[in-house]
Amino acid sequence: MAIKRYQLLADKLSAMIREGSLLAGDKLPSVRQASRQFSVSPSTVFKAYYQLEDRGLIRARQRSGYYVSENIGTVLPEPSRSKPQLVSSEVSINELVFSVLDSIRATATVPLGTAFPSHELFPMDQLSNSLAKANRSAKFIDTAVNVAPGYKALRRMIAVRYRTVGIDVAADDVIITNGAMEGLTLALQAVTQPGDTVAIESPGFYAALQTIERLHLKAIEIPMHPQDGADLDALTQMLKSQQIKACWLMSNFQNPLGSSMPEANKQSLVSLLSHYDIPLIEDDVYGELYFGKHYPAPLKTYDKKGLVIHCSSFSKTLAPTYRVGWTLAGRYYEKIRRAKLMTTLSTALPVQMALADYLNRGSYDKHLRKLRQLLEDQQRQMAASIAEHFPAGTKVSRPQGGYFLWVEFPSGVDALSLYKLALERDILIAPGPIFSVNGDYQHCIRLNYGQPMGRVAEAVKVIGELAHGLL
Amino acid sequence: MAIKRYQLLADKLSAMIREGSLLAGDKLPSVRQASRQFSVSPSTVFKAYYQLEDRGLIRARQRSGYYVSENIGTVLPEPSRSKPQLVSSEVSINELVFSVLDSIRATATVPLGTAFPSHELFPMDQLSNSLAKANRSAKFIDTAVNVAPGYKALRRMIAVRYRTVGIDVAADDVIITNGAMEGLTLALQAVTQPGDTVAIESPGFYAALQTIERLHLKAIEIPMHPQDGADLDALTQMLKSQQIKACWLMSNFQNPLGSSMPEANKQSLVSLLSHYDIPLIEDDVYGELYFGKHYPAPLKTYDKKGLVIHCSSFSKTLAPTYRVGWTLAGRYYEKIRRAKLMTTLSTALPVQMALADYLNRGSYDKHLRKLRQLLEDQQRQMAASIAEHFPAGTKVSRPQGGYFLWVEFPSGVDALSLYKLALERDILIAPGPIFSVNGDYQHCIRLNYGQPMGRVAEAVKVIGELAHGLL
Repeated sequence: MAIKRYQLLADKLSAMIREGSLLAGDKLPSVRQASRQFSVSPSTVFKAYYQLEDRGLIRARQRSGYYVSENIGTVLPEPSRSKPQLVSSEVSINELVFSVLDSIRATATVPLGTAFPSHELFPMDQLSNSLAKANRSAKFIDTAVNVAPGYKALRRMIAVRYRTVGIDVAADDVIITNGAMEGLTLALQAVTQPGDTVAIESPGFYAALQTIERLHLKAIEIPMHPQDGADLDALTQMLKSQQIKACWLMSNFQNPLGSSMPEANKQSLVSLLSHYDIPLIEDDVYGELYFGKHYPAPLKTYDKKGLVIHCSSFSKTLAPTYRVGWTLAGRYYEKIRRAKLMTTLSTALPVQMALADYLNRGSYDKHLRKLRQLLEDQQRQMAASIAEHFPAGTKVSRPQGGYFLWVEFPSGVDALSLYKLALERDILIAPGPIFSVNGDYQHCIRLNYGQPMGRVAEAVKVIGELAHGLL
Repeated sequence: MAIKRYQLLADKLSAMIREGSLLAGDKLPSVRQASRQFSVSPSTVFKAYYQLEDRGLIRARQRSGYYVSENIGTVLPEPSRSKPQLVSSEVSINELVFSVLDSIRATATVPLGTAFPSHELFPMDQLSNSLAKANRSAKFIDTAVNVAPGYKALRRMIAVRYRTVGIDVAADDVIITNGAMEGLTLALQAVTQPGDTVAIESPGFYAALQTIERLHLKAIEIPMHPQDGADLDALTQMLKSQQIKACWLMSNFQNPLGSSMPEANKQSLVSLLSHYDIPLIEDDVYGELYFGKHYPAPLKTYDKKGLVIHCSSFSKTLAPTYRVGWTLAGRYYEKIRRAKLMTTLSTALPVQMALADYLNRGSYDKHLRKLRQLLEDQQRQMAASIAEHFPAGTKVSRPQGGYFLWVEFPSGVDALSLYKLALERDILIAPGPIFSVNGDYQHCIRLNYGQPMGRVAEAVKVIGELAHGLL
């Protein structure tokens, strides 16, 4: 799909602002200068500037030109590297996780603590057209066509998307699942026996912890850098001293930290685990929500031995209520396909057909482009709000994609107390301890900026007030 | 919903034929006699007789009146009581199960070996209207509303159906699952630890065996009566001598045997297990497909201590491709709801909404009525065909509902050889050994009569020829 010139220019400038080449208050080149500098027409420059102004990134000053907005500059420091205990532990499901999950069902709440995006972010009308079409044809199709690995036209469209970014995937490599969660669960079950130890991130996605507990496994936590993700030196040491049976990671826009592994680290990680023949379960549900120029390569790209089980879904990017995900299972394909047959048999056919039709219409990339820009802007707004209202000493992550900000308060602010106080004010936040085996991150919270920002600004202010009160 | 008079009369007469009060060749009362005898108008009698004639149950002889069809009488003897080894065994998943499951994806095959009904049995146009309506409203609904236990309007409609037949169920007792299979799997996982022993039926649903293997459990097999199902004396002995942690059963139209437990046995079973505090997982997916007058009470009806986990779905009765089932989990409700949250989070919303709308329109019972009658007729046709074409000494089950006939050949016919030969002729049958821990039932096969009968009659004839050839 051709991207418009002005959009390319706007992207370039917003990347410069994001990466700090243009700072708050900096003057942008005049339209004539920019037209020469970027070899585009003046009207293209105008359109790009208008969009950046709309997005709050730049501001026009009368008779003086365009300047980078002032509040762009208020960036808080990032959280520090995590220091989990490097021992294998039994996991005990935290009641808190369920209380957080259950709170989201109270629709009056401002859901900053969920991992769900708002439906307002998604192309519901177009999806609805595709579902209507699927509905007309679904009635002639028997269940048999639909059993695992899933509806072929959808598997084909998914494979095409990977091939477009240079990852060699065929329709027959894809297993359709009920959201990425089902794939992740089946994957972990496929590569472990009860009692085994699994390496996970810390802080990490609580569902990984819960799955480990359900399958009677043990967890060992990998320290995390706020920007680069998993600490490979620490993992290397762990592999030498411990018997680790599997690794479960998010290399792109990790939940909750927002970290993304540099390409070199991704390669090293895959080759390190491959050396020990350890399967690597990759959760890539936020991968497509990058603010940079390209889809950051998933770990699967570097998988030579079929050890990477790559799980993703449409739940964070397109159709949360459809519950459709997929797994590229490498050498575990047959085992996982069979496990899917044995547990849920197949995924609802009408929604699979609707997604195949939607992808075939070719407007998914356009939607994603819009969504990424919106999320980038909302992240910036929320970060600015946090800088304004949260206590001095607060640190906050700077993810280059995804939905989440990870906030580290000064040590006086207890995340659980804050969680309870906020809930009394109808605001849901995700307290740090649910992202750890041992209840760490007691001063941290995760906030979701993938919600309509109207009520969010006010909610962030309230959280700030409550945090001040706890100090 | 009011049932027409002639339909009531036709049902009464067909039950008399099914139960043997009217035998093949018996003369039916004349229209005038019947009108007096059943207190209905002559035209009602005419309509009932026409319907029975259409269904092949009775035949008009010129100037002589109506007679019960001759081929009704060709009923083969039933298979004998099963005799599994009464020891706890590790389960090893049979490659055969997957080869059977995978063969159904070859659409050229006559799928007599599957557990799937044909889509032609279902009200696809009406479902399609409901899905269209769901599609129009689904876009305004956030994921949060849909997380486990599932879409409330659907849970409410399911609860109402149970209450209509006198079973006390509220919307908040229902957990929506991805087909009954997900509920069964989550249930077994909720009540066991790796290494535990689970009592199952023999022959029994292969998915139970597979789930037991996946969860690192052991199985002990309960002997089965061809009509009354689980042998409670044997189970009582097993409970005395073995440590059994859970029981997984189908009390209505058991798969593959077609047996149904008498009400007294159901009560005894529930109270027996309740005495030992053992959870009872009930798979009731065929319960609504009864040929008799009423929905046969599920085991859940007799559950006083919340020990029965009742699992069912719409996959066998209404919408196979939607993959929507439900679980009434008793005291395990919270554990299973949480497990659902952790594994697949929720079931696709549009299909849940479509089913809620369809149930609300009130034509489900009418559809079920038609479906039951069709299945009863198709069972009779297939049984007659088997009697005509299969070798002397063949035995066949006489289920009072569901989709399956269980056929026991004379010992010269090896089911696996027959399975392979039939597949070469594009006919899929389910060989007996997939229904047992130890590869028993080597002379048995399961046939599905829930398929359009056109190609089926010919296929049954071919199976008969192949079986003769093996002798």
